[in-house]
Amino acid sequence: MADILADVRARGDAAVLDYTQRFDALPAASVAELEIDPATLRAAFEALPAAQRDALQQAAARIRRYHEAQLEACGRSWQYRDDDGTLLGQMVTPLDRVGVYVPGGKAAYPSSVLMNAIPAHVAGVGEIIMVVPTPRGERNALVLAAAHVAGVTRAFTIGGAQAVAALAYGTATIPRVDKITGPGNAYVAAAKRRVFGTVGIDMIAGPSEILVLADGSTPPEWVAMDLFSQAEHDELAQSILLCPDADYLDAVQAAIDRLLPTLPRAAIIAASLNGRGMLVRTRSMQEACALSNRIAPEHLEVASREPQRWVPLLKHAGAIFLGAYTSESLGDYCAGPNHVLPTSGTARFSSPLGVYDFQKRSSLIEVSAAGAQRLGRIASVLAHGEGLQAHARAAELRLEAQP
Amino acid sequence: MADILADVRARGDAAVLDYTQRFDALPAASVAELEIDPATLRAAFEALPAAQRDALQQAAARIRRYHEAQLEACGRSWQYRDDDGTLLGQMVTPLDRVGVYVPGGKAAYPSSVLMNAIPAHVAGVGEIIMVVPTPRGERNALVLAAAHVAGVTRAFTIGGAQAVAALAYGTATIPRVDKITGPGNAYVAAAKRRVFGTVGIDMIAGPSEILVLADGSTPPEWVAMDLFSQAEHDELAQSILLCPDADYLDAVQAAIDRLLPTLPRAAIIAASLNGRGMLVRTRSMQEACALSNRIAPEHLEVASREPQRWVPLLKHAGAIFLGAYTSESLGDYCAGPNHVLPTSGTARFSSPLGVYDFQKRSSLIEVSAAGAQRLGRIASVLAHGEGLQAHARAAELRLEAQP
Repeated sequence: MADILADVRARGDAAVLDYTQRFDALPAASVAELEIDPATLRAAFEALPAAQRDALQQAAARIRRYHEAQLEACGRSWQYRDDDGTLLGQMVTPLDRVGVYVPGGKAAYPSSVLMNAIPAHVAGVGEIIMVVPTPRGERNALVLAAAHVAGVTRAFTIGGAQAVAALAYGTATIPRVDKITGPGNAYVAAAKRRVFGTVGIDMIAGPSEILVLADGSTPPEWVAMDLFSQAEHDELAQSILLCPDADYLDAVQAAIDRLLPTLPRAAIIAASLNGRGMLVRTRSMQEACALSNRIAPEHLEVASREPQRWVPLLKHAGAIFLGAYTSESLGDYCAGPNHVLPTSGTARFSSPLGVYDFQKRSSLIEVSAAGAQRLGRIASVLAHGEGLQAHARAAELRLEAQP
Repeated sequence: MADILADVRARGDAAVLDYTQRFDALPAASVAELEIDPATLRAAFEALPAAQRDALQQAAARIRRYHEAQLEACGRSWQYRDDDGTLLGQMVTPLDRVGVYVPGGKAAYPSSVLMNAIPAHVAGVGEIIMVVPTPRGERNALVLAAAHVAGVTRAFTIGGAQAVAALAYGTATIPRVDKITGPGNAYVAAAKRRVFGTVGIDMIAGPSEILVLADGSTPPEWVAMDLFSQAEHDELAQSILLCPDADYLDAVQAAIDRLLPTLPRAAIIAASLNGRGMLVRTRSMQEACALSNRIAPEHLEVASREPQRWVPLLKHAGAIFLGAYTSESLGDYCAGPNHVLPTSGTARFSSPLGVYDFQKRSSLIEVSAAGAQRLGRIASVLAHGEGLQAHARAAELRLEAQP
């Protein structure tokens, strides 16, 4: 994998072409041929059945609205002045160019295109470059359509470590980006980790998890299906139910046994539930909340008649789904918030993907002549205390002086 | 280094004690003996000369005020409701516990204690654990005093990879934290990189840099001293001056030659300027701004008579220092903004350390019965499109149903 990164860095387009031919069995004479133009993306959208077209557009509109509220709440520049006229503030600006990695082949997730590209677009990112591998030329129409809806600027049918390298270092054809987001297989994750520092990256995601806190008021079938909808992602996904009511736990177990055989992905779900799932009786809802805080789950469902009662007790979670009607799957696709969430307990210190991930901040300082007198004395004392005399002298030169 | 991490993870206190005895020549019978209690921190503060005490307090007050403004601007929870009563929002909460690494020995930086601990404190972090190595028992009074002023909760005289491991994994005596910030040597940086994921970390800093854009209106001695104050950090630090005026560049070079011999750290400064420094004549201030954007410097000084004129042209920088009076050193110590800034061009995609680094966000979703009808149809279509039938069924169960 490190070889691929180094090779793409050194040989650029030629290396990208070689690896794409080799790993994706995709014949092309140049990287330019691997670009999908905007008209093709739009055509994919227009060719969809009406129900899919509407669903994509409505989901995109809701995701956009949520991230616009996020921008409004936390994404603006600000400043203030001291009495002496000194100005202090922070300038918030979008990234110039980002890369969105989209997995290809069997597991194609158009929702992932929306969730990565829309916050970048709302943040004001100038160019959004999507990469998606198309093994043997197989293109997923929903993914291309989602790119059109989400405002992707350019799209290339490349994937794997070679796509990450191309985005991080740039080639003659593929522009260098400032940050790479989006999920991928183990190679892609390892490549992202390695280029971190040259570009920004989002969190490296672990297996997906759901934790349900139940007071027994939600139909057991609903909770069972929510546990399934996590478990169907893969065998390592984790579904946990915490509840103080033993009868309810039994009812959910019965619903699991009854509903499991009806699902196409029953084998994966069974492996996940048997290997990693848990139904746990707690002493109280309070104890369930405390346990949830220790786990810091990616998805936290509060399947309670009075869900807002428990919110003040909840400290760490990627996303909190309140009440019987809020199935995790509504949040995954279209409620509005992002479905890229911190996994494996990292919700203790990290956040959902958001507009803030596509912005950066610069401090602004403009010290007035009067301010330089006050600040210069403080800086001089501290700089001498640290043995940094040039720092001290730079402050002292501004004392009682006219420029 | 990986060995030390694994050993501390396995043996806890005993391993921390061993490495501290070995690397810091610090004899102690238990890790408890390595703790500095709050009364000792306060005593260190009270024993300082009045000028140092005042400087620390005034710097801390200004840094606190700036970060409170930051909290106000971007650190609050928010929510809104759809017409159908569905609630969407984001809950912003502080981290429970953070670790602040402070280098010890010769290069002791009390300002670094203020810059790391105060934003954590303002964010509302419950416990701030400081670690600082004290080779052969040598304690730096200003560092201890700064810990008192900045609101550090507990302090331990440990350092190196063993301190990073103790904070990341916890031991019987040292509590596990959620995030580790603060500068350290190469071992500390490597250890932080490796524990990333178990805990959060701040950026790994490269050598420090300053870029000065000058229109010729600032006294050449002032600019020379600002270039020195970057170069004195270490031989790899970088100081660059861009200016369209050849005479002014000559005047700065003359000032450098005249002032350099007067500085205690002249050897380091000379090595840095000769190896990595540049005085560059540009065609115009506009071209200088464009070059600065390509470099994305950590510190950007706009030494201009009309500094605000150039701000709209500046896209990427950790901190921007406007006008002749705003020496970088004022920002390093006491203007208010943080001095922990993105280095090596990472200002293209990352930000100064701030209150936001000590908070995390959880999405909030509470879908109403009516909302579940609208959202359920969208989610069902998209989930089927991705081949995730349990996701689809979970949404469909909420259609036209009463819980």
